Amino acid sequence: MALRRVAIDTYRENVAYLHRDCAVYRAEGFQALSKVEVRANGRRILATVNVVDDEALVGCHELGLSEDAFLQLNVSDGHTASVSQAEPPESIDALHRKISGERLNRDDYRNIIRDIAELRYSKIELTAFVVATQRDELDREEVYFLTEAMVASGRKLDWHDPLVVDKHCIGGIPGNRTSMLVVPIVAAHGLLCPKTSSRAITSPAGTADTMEVLANVELPFEQLADIVRDHRACLAWGGTANLSPADDVLISVERPLAIDSAGQMVASILSKKIAAGSTHLVLDIPIGPTAKVRSMPEAQRLRRLFEYVAGRIHLSLDVVITDGRQPIGNGIGPVLEARDVMRVLENDPRAPNDLRQKSLRLAGRLIECNPDVRGGDGFGIARDILDSGRALSKMNAILAAQGQKLFDHNNPQLGSLTFDVLATDAGVVTAIDNLQIARIARLAGAPKVIGAGVDLFRKLGDVVSMGDVMYRVHAGFQSDQIFARQASGKSTGYTLGRADEVPHVFVEF
Amino acid sequence: MALRRVAIDTYRENVAYLHRDCAVYRAEGFQALSKVEVRANGRRILATVNVVDDEALVGCHELGLSEDAFLQLNVSDGHTASVSQAEPPESIDALHRKISGERLNRDDYRNIIRDIAELRYSKIELTAFVVATQRDELDREEVYFLTEAMVASGRKLDWHDPLVVDKHCIGGIPGNRTSMLVVPIVAAHGLLCPKTSSRAITSPAGTADTMEVLANVELPFEQLADIVRDHRACLAWGGTANLSPADDVLISVERPLAIDSAGQMVASILSKKIAAGSTHLVLDIPIGPTAKVRSMPEAQRLRRLFEYVAGRIHLSLDVVITDGRQPIGNGIGPVLEARDVMRVLENDPRAPNDLRQKSLRLAGRLIECNPDVRGGDGFGIARDILDSGRALSKMNAILAAQGQKLFDHNNPQLGSLTFDVLATDAGVVTAIDNLQIARIARLAGAPKVIGAGVDLFRKLGDVVSMGDVMYRVHAGFQSDQIFARQASGKSTGYTLGRADEVPHVFVEF
Repeated sequence: MALRRVAIDTYRENVAYLHRDCAVYRAEGFQALSKVEVRANGRRILATVNVVDDEALVGCHELGLSEDAFLQLNVSDGHTASVSQAEPPESIDALHRKISGERLNRDDYRNIIRDIAELRYSKIELTAFVVATQRDELDREEVYFLTEAMVASGRKLDWHDPLVVDKHCIGGIPGNRTSMLVVPIVAAHGLLCPKTSSRAITSPAGTADTMEVLANVELPFEQLADIVRDHRACLAWGGTANLSPADDVLISVERPLAIDSAGQMVASILSKKIAAGSTHLVLDIPIGPTAKVRSMPEAQRLRRLFEYVAGRIHLSLDVVITDGRQPIGNGIGPVLEARDVMRVLENDPRAPNDLRQKSLRLAGRLIECNPDVRGGDGFGIARDILDSGRALSKMNAILAAQGQKLFDHNNPQLGSLTFDVLATDAGVVTAIDNLQIARIARLAGAPKVIGAGVDLFRKLGDVVSMGDVMYRVHAGFQSDQIFARQASGKSTGYTLGRADEVPHVFVEF
Repeated sequence: MALRRVAIDTYRENVAYLHRDCAVYRAEGFQALSKVEVRANGRRILATVNVVDDEALVGCHELGLSEDAFLQLNVSDGHTASVSQAEPPESIDALHRKISGERLNRDDYRNIIRDIAELRYSKIELTAFVVATQRDELDREEVYFLTEAMVASGRKLDWHDPLVVDKHCIGGIPGNRTSMLVVPIVAAHGLLCPKTSSRAITSPAGTADTMEVLANVELPFEQLADIVRDHRACLAWGGTANLSPADDVLISVERPLAIDSAGQMVASILSKKIAAGSTHLVLDIPIGPTAKVRSMPEAQRLRRLFEYVAGRIHLSLDVVITDGRQPIGNGIGPVLEARDVMRVLENDPRAPNDLRQKSLRLAGRLIECNPDVRGGDGFGIARDILDSGRALSKMNAILAAQGQKLFDHNNPQLGSLTFDVLATDAGVVTAIDNLQIARIARLAGAPKVIGAGVDLFRKLGDVVSMGDVMYRVHAGFQSDQIFARQASGKSTGYTLGRADEVPHVFVEF
């Protein structure tokens, strides 16, 4: 049959479009949603069948393929392909065993993850895997098998250095842009820190989105390697490196389902780090009433799981449990967060102190990976590097190498449609809802509209009078502004009360 | 935006095709797989977004809709529609609670099943529900809630008769066409038995496929009702009646995943029966080494679950545990099975005795639903009806009413490409693998090629000599014949051994 590119983005699922009257479809007894094997150009892919009733889309002698599928075959339109009933992916038997609640072994996970990375699973099978492996369905050795299999599914970087450091936060805290401070600090200390980050998936900004305000983040891998050799660090988007590709496929169903189980989180984070060539990782687990982790026992359980798996894959891991009761810094949204980061680096008096302190603490832990540094000395070293301007110099060198953009933190280009959310009463700020503030910032347009977001004027424990501005919302478009205003009208995300009602959180800081 | 019908059958998932450069897509920040709400013609549907990069498919000012979605709006091409970010379906919160392992209440199930029946769930959400509610995830009251919700999602028939009988088998046994004998027998006795059946999904023939060899099975509901009034029975395909429509949507993901959990099976079967207006049901649970249920304790657990739910929805249920060690009858495939059925009705000496006996037993149980019949007398009454030819007369009346086709059981039109599978040794048949025989029959072309299938010449306990024909395979196409021969070459499905190796099964018979 002649291949035809059908320009539909089916988002990490291979779809084959077959005409209802096509001879192959009828003879082989295919049904909608059954899978076919397509062979062309020496390659073989699996695809889920969608039946088409319009010859303008695909003719009777054509095989339409969605963009994902077409790319995998690496051929041009009209190339000949053969189609047959697909044998189910090799690992389907293991998937069924997991669905029925069995424990799987190392080979099972390796086969499943390889099939997933090669897009041999339909969305249905993928979802079944994600749901069947969430909650307590995986024991910790299975989480290790899964992690290892995810590393094996993609490329693994080797920086030829015995000490490759990284930091990571499990997420959920708006404004938490510590990486953009930790990386220049530890690199200025001389540690190798080739940082790749993600873009926002459900949050108002990821590190890659914020960094992109200041410099180019989508760089070819060779250029990235040069920058890391020259400057001991980079701050780039991780999407081009093909690290742990199965993870990206899994996320395509985890995101719409809002599933974020401990086992999958550990496997996802640690597999990316190992694939990126890290040897030492500091991991930030924030806890708070509206953080991902809400209690200390839960944080400790998660810590132990991370530590177990890290131990098995030979990653040196230092878990830090931090204060996640409220957003970090003042700005939420790419430009606002870039402003805060640059103010910390420049030791500007307007710099948010919580962002500064947290970054120093995390950087200090990483600096202590250096065997010449005594335990406890890291924080002081990090502070000296920041206060002396060496962190700023390092950041400027990285920005220049990646392709610096014009940015002035004294005059950030914020969304010009603004409204202020005022206190309707007097009192002390006793709670700031991370989820609601993130929602308002996203509705205002972040991260797509880089100048959009929320600028916090008050934080936990601050005393406010009636009519004080609690935060300002910036939007770029009228409709976004309306949505954000509706959301903040329903719930501002702020709770006022008495000073003794501010919840405590018992973490080092 | 202008609606455009995109003639792609996405199989019970609403898909919206939006051009990547379309203003709505960009402004609203939609992403691939996010859901949109489409309003037109006073109706509102949810659809999953696929992004399109080809103006020939959908232009920048158009909204493409898959066939399922287009049908639901009931408009013509070019009709104006508005599109917006979809609020998640109302029941998504309940879905998330079920995914995290919580027990759901009656309202939760009602909301979930209503959203599913209205195609408000994406394939991903649907799969998550199916996987999260399988195995022991549902307690028996939840199975009842689910059943009740599935009934409420569709139409409910009312036959205005205090006694509406039905029989059902949980499936898995090839050739098990007892309905086509039970229905004419009990209708001849005077019971109301408006039987609707399914087509084969994964088996070589469903009752509707076999009945279609003899008569038309796709009848408008009004005609069906007339036939039932005149003849007290029908044997039709159930697909047109909109009974328990959520079930059909759930099956669209259960089938590719081969998930068939007890809770879902009970809800699926009982909801269809209640919706079809049945008051009394005889349920056949076959057990055997290659049946769906493999042990008596498992069968008893399943029986109790059926009985509990039936009790809650006021359906009088009689569970019969039967011999499922091997196929029932000789023929497997629509024409072959129709031949066996007609031979039993005509009291032909070639009629398979196991099919006759099992049908009489099931019919006898149903006849005992008649309060005038003493317990234990049903079997004798059924046998008299069959032996006297009254069952055959009733069947002929039903066939004539539904639109009889030409069929001669002395000369059935079987697939002309045949091969025989011979014994390679002497011995006693100690096992016949239901799954392998079904697989061979399907590869041979059944049910699509109605004359294709497997004709069994030997059954359990039969003595065979080397070279004896164990079964004959009929195919309509060369390629099918090759596939079937390959499969039977790998495993014939037959095991020979000593007479004392035939497994026993302790069921009434």
